[in-house]
Amino acid sequence: MLSDAIAHYQQRVNQHLASLLENLPVTDPALKAAMSHGVLLGGKRVRPFLVYAVGEMLGVAADKLDNCAAAIECIHAYSLIHDDLPAMDDDELRRGQPTVHIAFDEATAILAGDALQSLAFEILSSDSHFSATQQLAMVKSLALASGYHGMCGGQALDMAATDKQINLAQLTQLHRLKTGALIRCAVELAVIAAESNPLTHQRLGEYAEAIGLAFQVQDDILDLTSSTEELGKPQGSDTKSNKSTYPRLLGLDGAKSTAQQLLQDALSALDDLPYNNRIIAEFARYIIERRV
Amino acid sequence: MLSDAIAHYQQRVNQHLASLLENLPVTDPALKAAMSHGVLLGGKRVRPFLVYAVGEMLGVAADKLDNCAAAIECIHAYSLIHDDLPAMDDDELRRGQPTVHIAFDEATAILAGDALQSLAFEILSSDSHFSATQQLAMVKSLALASGYHGMCGGQALDMAATDKQINLAQLTQLHRLKTGALIRCAVELAVIAAESNPLTHQRLGEYAEAIGLAFQVQDDILDLTSSTEELGKPQGSDTKSNKSTYPRLLGLDGAKSTAQQLLQDALSALDDLPYNNRIIAEFARYIIERRV
Repeated sequence: MLSDAIAHYQQRVNQHLASLLENLPVTDPALKAAMSHGVLLGGKRVRPFLVYAVGEMLGVAADKLDNCAAAIECIHAYSLIHDDLPAMDDDELRRGQPTVHIAFDEATAILAGDALQSLAFEILSSDSHFSATQQLAMVKSLALASGYHGMCGGQALDMAATDKQINLAQLTQLHRLKTGALIRCAVELAVIAAESNPLTHQRLGEYAEAIGLAFQVQDDILDLTSSTEELGKPQGSDTKSNKSTYPRLLGLDGAKSTAQQLLQDALSALDDLPYNNRIIAEFARYIIERRV
Repeated sequence: MLSDAIAHYQQRVNQHLASLLENLPVTDPALKAAMSHGVLLGGKRVRPFLVYAVGEMLGVAADKLDNCAAAIECIHAYSLIHDDLPAMDDDELRRGQPTVHIAFDEATAILAGDALQSLAFEILSSDSHFSATQQLAMVKSLALASGYHGMCGGQALDMAATDKQINLAQLTQLHRLKTGALIRCAVELAVIAAESNPLTHQRLGEYAEAIGLAFQVQDDILDLTSSTEELGKPQGSDTKSNKSTYPRLLGLDGAKSTAQQLLQDALSALDDLPYNNRIIAEFARYIIERRV
């Protein structure tokens, strides 16, 4: 069952993240606590799931993938901490819990995010399961996916698009960077770990591209259709903050059929590959059927 | 002359940074402009200087060192952008120019800092002048120096020490992390580039440790004794914000003799090494004699 796999990998990465954070020396208790709060708040762990599920599908043992899964989640967690800041989205709740700047303070939240980004690169560059060439490729993939060419660039486009009319191509580009880049990177880390051939790399890249976008389309749909309680954050917050969304540009039905199309794209990318893709195919379906 | 070498390396790294930033695609004009503003504001370029001066002393050509120098300066620049934010030091001027959150806005400043950190790791992991093993060692050194174990940890200690009495050992630990770690890293990047032997690594590490601390002692002294115009930021801002400083703990004369002792430590670390250390010995002297 997919839900078992999700729970299994969730628990696995949570445990690994907790142990990585516990093992930090207590240089500054507040900073360490804020980093842990941000990382261990829970969440679906979509990116670690993809690292593990794709990696295991390609024949890499899960214990070799722990650091990749943890590193990419550190990047994701730092981005959430910074996104929640008053100067950004100004969110006080995340997954039903106080955000880092609420539980601590703004300065500590900024710093905890910064330190989590460094930690991600520290983890990847200290991972003795892989050759230097593989580790370096992982670092490069994560740096590109995190920064100006990826997540940060997408976040900047998102900010620039607030209170403005943007078209579908612009919205797609925004999400391709803001959330898609890190999802593609999760799959790429697994591919690098497995030293897969170029065709596998290519097709899994297409799979990741499609589910990355589908993930955002579904997020936009859920923001309109779920309750605050289900979301763990205020319902309708995209509408309130005047963000461009797929339902706004395409209508709710249009957004739903876009998500369906992206699912088909993801599934056909897997068709060519000689692996047992059951889990990651189910995961693509889950991405657009989830309620939270 | 040392001043020629400083000017030469300053110009060299400025040019390289400008070209790296210019070559970013225009994904988001504001983010790109904010990153450039933060990086190209000027400054002494102490860390790039050390990369170049130590690297050339060890026989590495300057053009092989450009990326290391640029990467470490990206980390330094991001830390200044975030330190200047209202939630941190709340500074509106840096080197006589508006800080990034003043020239742009807070959200863009947070994001520009984040993207500059990623860019540093992108630059190091894309640097084809070195073997994968060297590049990986550089990434690891920079990640450790930047994050919880280094600069971010030191910044957190600094925040925790504000409005509080801390002792000399605590102040030293704070600065060893906050500014020292990145200065040691600059020297280490050069050592990795040169594939130096362990003794060289060890002695240059001691040199870096001493000048890193001396740099901060002198900063504290200058904050008390220089004018706002000379500093390019408000004079006495440490006193105003109730920060612990060397002059406060040791008196102005005590701080000055600590700086002298650190200079002697730096110089004797160089004594054992069979290189022409004139430039970096003069630089150690400059660190504690500079007026800005």
